[in-house]
Amino acid sequence: MSTSVEIICIGTELLIGKTLNTNAHWLAKRITTLGLNVRRITNTADDINEISNIIQEAIQRKPHFIITTGGLGPTFDDKTLEGIAKGLKRKIKINDDALKMIEKTYRKYVEERLIDKVELTPPRVKMAKLPEGANPLPNPIGTAPGVLIEYEGTTIIALPGVPSEMEAIFEESVVPILKKAAGDAIFFETSIYIIGVMESDIAPLIDQVRHNNPHVYIKSHPGREGEKKPRLELHLTTTAKDLKLAKNHVGKALIEITELVQQKGGKTKASKEVTTD
Amino acid sequence: MSTSVEIICIGTELLIGKTLNTNAHWLAKRITTLGLNVRRITNTADDINEISNIIQEAIQRKPHFIITTGGLGPTFDDKTLEGIAKGLKRKIKINDDALKMIEKTYRKYVEERLIDKVELTPPRVKMAKLPEGANPLPNPIGTAPGVLIEYEGTTIIALPGVPSEMEAIFEESVVPILKKAAGDAIFFETSIYIIGVMESDIAPLIDQVRHNNPHVYIKSHPGREGEKKPRLELHLTTTAKDLKLAKNHVGKALIEITELVQQKGGKTKASKEVTTD
Repeated sequence: MSTSVEIICIGTELLIGKTLNTNAHWLAKRITTLGLNVRRITNTADDINEISNIIQEAIQRKPHFIITTGGLGPTFDDKTLEGIAKGLKRKIKINDDALKMIEKTYRKYVEERLIDKVELTPPRVKMAKLPEGANPLPNPIGTAPGVLIEYEGTTIIALPGVPSEMEAIFEESVVPILKKAAGDAIFFETSIYIIGVMESDIAPLIDQVRHNNPHVYIKSHPGREGEKKPRLELHLTTTAKDLKLAKNHVGKALIEITELVQQKGGKTKASKEVTTD
Repeated sequence: MSTSVEIICIGTELLIGKTLNTNAHWLAKRITTLGLNVRRITNTADDINEISNIIQEAIQRKPHFIITTGGLGPTFDDKTLEGIAKGLKRKIKINDDALKMIEKTYRKYVEERLIDKVELTPPRVKMAKLPEGANPLPNPIGTAPGVLIEYEGTTIIALPGVPSEMEAIFEESVVPILKKAAGDAIFFETSIYIIGVMESDIAPLIDQVRHNNPHVYIKSHPGREGEKKPRLELHLTTTAKDLKLAKNHVGKALIEITELVQQKGGKTKASKEVTTD
């Protein structure tokens, strides 16, 4: 039974194509390599009702974790915490720990002479207004804290949208929690390239190998079929309790594919191996 | 009343962080500039039940269009059409027009001496198995056709995951349909940069301008607040029935912001303007 995660990225800039969603990509890769299973990634606008609906829908699917990005800042369009609170039917209130974190950051800005004095204006206090029962996660490089909420077996973690801040809070406060939840699971991936056989001719071979190797997920990524030399990437991934077992599983599938491709008159070329803890 | 679109990107490679979702970004930008409104982007795995669920959920929100990417190819892990059929409770059957398109492509591959003869093997025929009532959209540069299905007021369009093929079918077959649906709506965007004022200090000014300019969507994108000179991008967008009106709306908001920022002691710097038809 794998540990499931949903990612929800909040920001109208994603829906109008202003911003390429590198946060989802970074999080998906990082969470997968920690041994957890990302089930769905949803992008939505800065809209309280939409955020509330998406949180409610995700909660119903009972993932172990929901991780959101974006919408924690001081402006009117930062609506994530209000949306989550509405979805969970909790009130929003000033969290003293969050307010202290924010005050500390502005004190630092005064020391650095970026501002004259610490004024906790309404937009700054807004960043400390969390759903009831939530805990703030320190933001080591920005102002808005991350937020953690436990709700009926799902841990909801809200991170900022600025990539450097999102990544910093994730590494410092979220990784330990995810590692503990994933237990001993490790993720292992490798690719081979198949040259000279079309994807449509490889398809039955992949089926056969997949059938013989239920622990290994195999996916083909085609170049253009009409290219002079069709070149196909086969990407093999597995999650196992230790690296030796993972490599055994993937290695067996690799050997089978290589033999079958050679029988079809094609060639395979090894690629880099990637492993993780 | 704007024309609404949901994008659904299908591919386990997106959920494990192997692939950065440039398709969603490209589609969101292109659809927005055509004057339509992207409401949600969902990424899911190559899993028939998941695809079916996501299609059913999207249908219930009654968007004008659902556009999917990925999962149309010849291999076992290409499950989009089965997933859509299941979601719509329709049968999958060989579509004669789709089969002719596929046969024509393989005849071309024979002419180009990429393959010896046209064999319609099961994996190749698979690409012609569409939900009942669907129509294929020609793929000018690859093999798998796109697919169009009308369902209770929503037009579902399935495009391949290979970016060049997705873009080619979109430009050739989808743009005319979306343009017609959008009518005269045009999208206009511009940015200005604010230097020397923190986002938390700009927040109330943005609120004020937003309140005075309900047709204009204004969003701030911060650099790091703690930077030596805080630098904030304000991105202004609008959808209107013609370019003159759009520019009037955005221009009025721009002037108001500039004046308010100057009163706060900050500076603004103009950015490029982008317009579209």
